[in-house]
Amino acid sequence: MSQTAPEIEELIRLLGKLPGLGPRSARRAVLHLARRREQLLQPLATALAEVAEKARPCAICGNVDIGEICNVCADPDRDPSTLCVVEEVGDLWAMERAGAFRGRYHVLGGVLSALDGVGPEELRIPFLVERARAPEVTEVVLALNATVDGQTTAHVIAEALSGADVRVTSLAKGVPVGGELDYLDDGTISAALGARREI
Amino acid sequence: MSQTAPEIEELIRLLGKLPGLGPRSARRAVLHLARRREQLLQPLATALAEVAEKARPCAICGNVDIGEICNVCADPDRDPSTLCVVEEVGDLWAMERAGAFRGRYHVLGGVLSALDGVGPEELRIPFLVERARAPEVTEVVLALNATVDGQTTAHVIAEALSGADVRVTSLAKGVPVGGELDYLDDGTISAALGARREI
Repeated sequence: MSQTAPEIEELIRLLGKLPGLGPRSARRAVLHLARRREQLLQPLATALAEVAEKARPCAICGNVDIGEICNVCADPDRDPSTLCVVEEVGDLWAMERAGAFRGRYHVLGGVLSALDGVGPEELRIPFLVERARAPEVTEVVLALNATVDGQTTAHVIAEALSGADVRVTSLAKGVPVGGELDYLDDGTISAALGARREI
Repeated sequence: MSQTAPEIEELIRLLGKLPGLGPRSARRAVLHLARRREQLLQPLATALAEVAEKARPCAICGNVDIGEICNVCADPDRDPSTLCVVEEVGDLWAMERAGAFRGRYHVLGGVLSALDGVGPEELRIPFLVERARAPEVTEVVLALNATVDGQTTAHVIAEALSGADVRVTSLAKGVPVGGELDYLDDGTISAALGARREI
């Protein structure tokens, strides 16, 4: 492909770095864009430039949004008494899609990892403790992934919050909606049995 | 996701229209970009804007490149005696990657289809005939896909070129390199047998 213009090669190279796209599908995407100049290529260039210029992490919760403070933190209708701790911005968006939580968030930006040198400071855990000490906050929900790293991080956070006057809760573990027992792992079945409730 | 900024929603919507990306992976791509502001988001925005501004179909062959005339057509070292006819720009790029062809191209931009109202005019076949009549052109290679539509289109082009003083050839059909007979379809085996050569 020595004959293709460097501008096009650069676009293929960068698109190929997106998750879900490799070099081959990035080339296909560029051809797709070139055929849809008005409908897709130009609008996408504009949208990307706009997000590149304006999007930043929210100074309070770490959500990605336009402006200094994100829409969730700026919304006066959100319940300030409950903080929900998530690992990544994608988890916050998943919670919002579910539409079941009306409080505020705190995005860690990862999980604790001695190996990768990720300590409480990197995850803004001291700032979380500070937020939890605010008089209006009564509960911190730990909505971390049900992985070993996520659960370790949850324990460390629970300990850090022990001095603050708040309830610390975590998402229930159990059978996912639509889940069939025959296809579930032993750990999930044990957790669901241990946490069984009166119906 | 009523809480996400419209700028970000718009970027997710547009990215989701790329081949290989759906709404879900587009959202993941945007989060990936937001985390890699300097290394990926800004360079990608720049690269896309540049391509959106400068890339256009080559006025001669239909290749997508920067500028009025593409690199292949503008290259004085390419053999002007042979024209290679391909369906799409992606096919031209595939030929270039193979590096086996040193002539010039003609991109049809599709195949003939009475159903979709694609006739010879839409595929620039009259312009191909005009190019083939140039005194320096001695051969037209039809490198169309080995599909029913591709082969129908090849026949129509061969007929249109019958008045021009050129050889009309097409890519050989046979066993692909690395192909195993046991996994090949009957049509390919029959074609390869019919076109057998002395070794």
